[in-house]
Amino acid sequence: MQYSELIPDDVEALQAIAGNSHVKVGDAIHDDYMRDELALDLYRPDAVVEPKTTEEVAAIMSYCSNRGIAVTTRGSGTGLCGGSVPLYGGIVLSTARMNRILDIDEKNLMAVVEPGVLLMEFQQAVEERGLFYPPDPGEKTATLGGNVSTNAGGMRAVRYGVTRDYVLGLEAVLADGTVMETGGKVVKNSSGYSLGHLLIGAEGTLAVITKITLKLLPKPERQVSLLVPFPSLEEGIRAVPEILAAKEVPTAIEFMQKEILDAAETYLGKAFPDSSAPSYLLLTFYGRNMVELEQVYDRVAHVCLDAGAVDVFIANTADRQESIWETRGAFLEALKAMSDLEEVDVVVPPTEVASFIAYTEELAAEYDVRILSFGHAGDGNLHVYILQDQLSKEEWQRRAEQIMEAVYRRARKLRGQVSGEHGIGYAKRPYLRASLGETQMQLMRGIKDTFDRKGILNPGKVWSSF
Amino acid sequence: MQYSELIPDDVEALQAIAGNSHVKVGDAIHDDYMRDELALDLYRPDAVVEPKTTEEVAAIMSYCSNRGIAVTTRGSGTGLCGGSVPLYGGIVLSTARMNRILDIDEKNLMAVVEPGVLLMEFQQAVEERGLFYPPDPGEKTATLGGNVSTNAGGMRAVRYGVTRDYVLGLEAVLADGTVMETGGKVVKNSSGYSLGHLLIGAEGTLAVITKITLKLLPKPERQVSLLVPFPSLEEGIRAVPEILAAKEVPTAIEFMQKEILDAAETYLGKAFPDSSAPSYLLLTFYGRNMVELEQVYDRVAHVCLDAGAVDVFIANTADRQESIWETRGAFLEALKAMSDLEEVDVVVPPTEVASFIAYTEELAAEYDVRILSFGHAGDGNLHVYILQDQLSKEEWQRRAEQIMEAVYRRARKLRGQVSGEHGIGYAKRPYLRASLGETQMQLMRGIKDTFDRKGILNPGKVWSSF
Repeated sequence: MQYSELIPDDVEALQAIAGNSHVKVGDAIHDDYMRDELALDLYRPDAVVEPKTTEEVAAIMSYCSNRGIAVTTRGSGTGLCGGSVPLYGGIVLSTARMNRILDIDEKNLMAVVEPGVLLMEFQQAVEERGLFYPPDPGEKTATLGGNVSTNAGGMRAVRYGVTRDYVLGLEAVLADGTVMETGGKVVKNSSGYSLGHLLIGAEGTLAVITKITLKLLPKPERQVSLLVPFPSLEEGIRAVPEILAAKEVPTAIEFMQKEILDAAETYLGKAFPDSSAPSYLLLTFYGRNMVELEQVYDRVAHVCLDAGAVDVFIANTADRQESIWETRGAFLEALKAMSDLEEVDVVVPPTEVASFIAYTEELAAEYDVRILSFGHAGDGNLHVYILQDQLSKEEWQRRAEQIMEAVYRRARKLRGQVSGEHGIGYAKRPYLRASLGETQMQLMRGIKDTFDRKGILNPGKVWSSF
Repeated sequence: MQYSELIPDDVEALQAIAGNSHVKVGDAIHDDYMRDELALDLYRPDAVVEPKTTEEVAAIMSYCSNRGIAVTTRGSGTGLCGGSVPLYGGIVLSTARMNRILDIDEKNLMAVVEPGVLLMEFQQAVEERGLFYPPDPGEKTATLGGNVSTNAGGMRAVRYGVTRDYVLGLEAVLADGTVMETGGKVVKNSSGYSLGHLLIGAEGTLAVITKITLKLLPKPERQVSLLVPFPSLEEGIRAVPEILAAKEVPTAIEFMQKEILDAAETYLGKAFPDSSAPSYLLLTFYGRNMVELEQVYDRVAHVCLDAGAVDVFIANTADRQESIWETRGAFLEALKAMSDLEEVDVVVPPTEVASFIAYTEELAAEYDVRILSFGHAGDGNLHVYILQDQLSKEEWQRRAEQIMEAVYRRARKLRGQVSGEHGIGYAKRPYLRASLGETQMQLMRGIKDTFDRKGILNPGKVWSSF
């Protein structure tokens, strides 16, 4: 693929659309626009453009389409697979200024937002009105546009599902500048192929999302967390299908091992309520009142004890819960502070998580590297980190590549998938291809051509092999 | 589009694949295979083929692709828009024999089924194990394959969502006979464009679905229904957003008017608990125990009374609930027993339902026809029926067409959609085109070409203009 490099005329044209101060070039472009949270290599865009309105996005796309300029849409840049990195230069289209919550509609339990609204701002705004937006990805400074584009999941997916389940409608600008609207303020929709569900998780390769209509729920009134120490990671994880089979579905079921807990304590400079056990499950339950919640967690506590738990700590005050979840929220940063990382965001059936973790431990021994895991035990979504530690970059990457191939091969065998919630970006392309096979890759390629014949939207991502 | 008519060699080849007794031709083809539940015109297929396995479906598709034979997949034929009608002859591929529940996985809260399993059989099988499949379309003899292909909704969508929200994985056979698998036993998935969500609601135009992995929930232990009479349909429907805003989301919120209730009583030969009021809301709540449920329905009962309800009848025994819901379930049959019908399955924001119904009443007066409505007030999905009564077929169809255009125009203005849950088939094609516009139709056309270059799968449906 060949894309046009920006010339001064292009910059002027883009400035005429978005305003002089909202088109950055040269040294005014911060390094942040050249990478995301995990990617190490830098890719420089020719310009960063920050439109404010759908009309400006449409004009930008129409211009770039005519000129053959690559366009990579970027929210907060908190991705972990390079999805928002401008591999082929051109412009980075930042949604940072499209950050208005347009409507919180209490009577329809819906909201309409621009893509640059931050997850944490939106959660707060709806909760102030007694409403609730269930998707809860770990990175609260991510934008909702980014969440939709990666179909972000998060902690509460066990019970409430993922971002996709809350998107009712999208406004989007196609590669040629046409504005389209799919879905709307409707809960049900059987009106032709679901173009909306195709844009969700497409990582900006099919269109630029400019408005999002989201479904809301009433805010659950009470919550309780259980911190459950186990004598081994395997015993903890083996308790999870027993919890699900007991017909009590918690809002969240996270697993964690002592090594990462210790790292998070060091990173935050705060002690965790308990860190004497080799492994923990962290469960949260939402409910109407404490009487109801007590019945539920009491039952689940017994399931855990029967499954080998050493103890059950109940966190029923806001403070105690916050301190536990703050530690959980710091895991990735704590790991990054220890070493460079390669990440695997694999998803398998919940019953297979324990054997999967055991397999990563075999691989760690075989390749003599540290592999640490945490994640969402209740929905089978693991975050597996391969640490560089004292290895040379080349040696580490060589081993990591072999480990990742083995890990994804195992996931495939278990009917799992390459990515549970982080997406493919450019970092996971070969594994996606190996997992899905050529037939599906060709279908994706055909869909891409249908939406973006010139291939200017986020080139080199998801299905692409170049 | 030109398709090959079946010749004796083709019939022999199909018999060699599916077995002699599973390929029907000529007079052995029942009229049912030429229409669905609402379509009046008959379209005759050259053959009806009933494969048993994915391998047989793959062989059939490979053969038909080579020969250019049209293939229309059919479940139980309970659709209302002609989706399973073989407009261009060729073969009807019936999924009736692919009717095995392959796996009910209590530890992962998932099930794997073949497409010909009936909704009612599946609901019963999972409930016997203390599990629950939330989607609840009115037509219980529909197949799950049909439910997936139309993204069927039903009564419980207010609280639990639609079929799409419970599909985790699909196995499907492409037009050329290639077998593909998308998703799996995974709750989260961000692994490339969601081909699965594209097949959901595609009404068999993109692939033949051969296996479905579904998400299950624990079965709610208790349920209560409220039957709430109102002095007018409008007052009843205006109460719905108040109920949602009160932060109590019922499992179902149906609205019904006296005229249809009376028809259903006559049709069933049974009396409804109360039919003195002009209009009713029917609400259901699911919960853990009666103490919890009482708090909830008590609060909602007061919201209804404040909104003008005449009374609130509480149905808290299985018998009473069944008798009410049996009547609700007979509405469509009762209407069909009175007159031929044209149906509109429009969906609008819940707050707009009341004004929408008022508009259909204006149209009824203007065009001097009976228009009756019932449906899912909680999710804004209305079923509006235009009755023929004593009009000539031509005159009725002339008026119905104008009314439908007006109705869909109004829906569009309210950010509604052409179909909430019945799909497009061939009956609703012009309205879909008018609603979505040429850009989206062209995108759908491009997707169709990507999946089915020869256009042999269910020709003439959804996006097609021919």
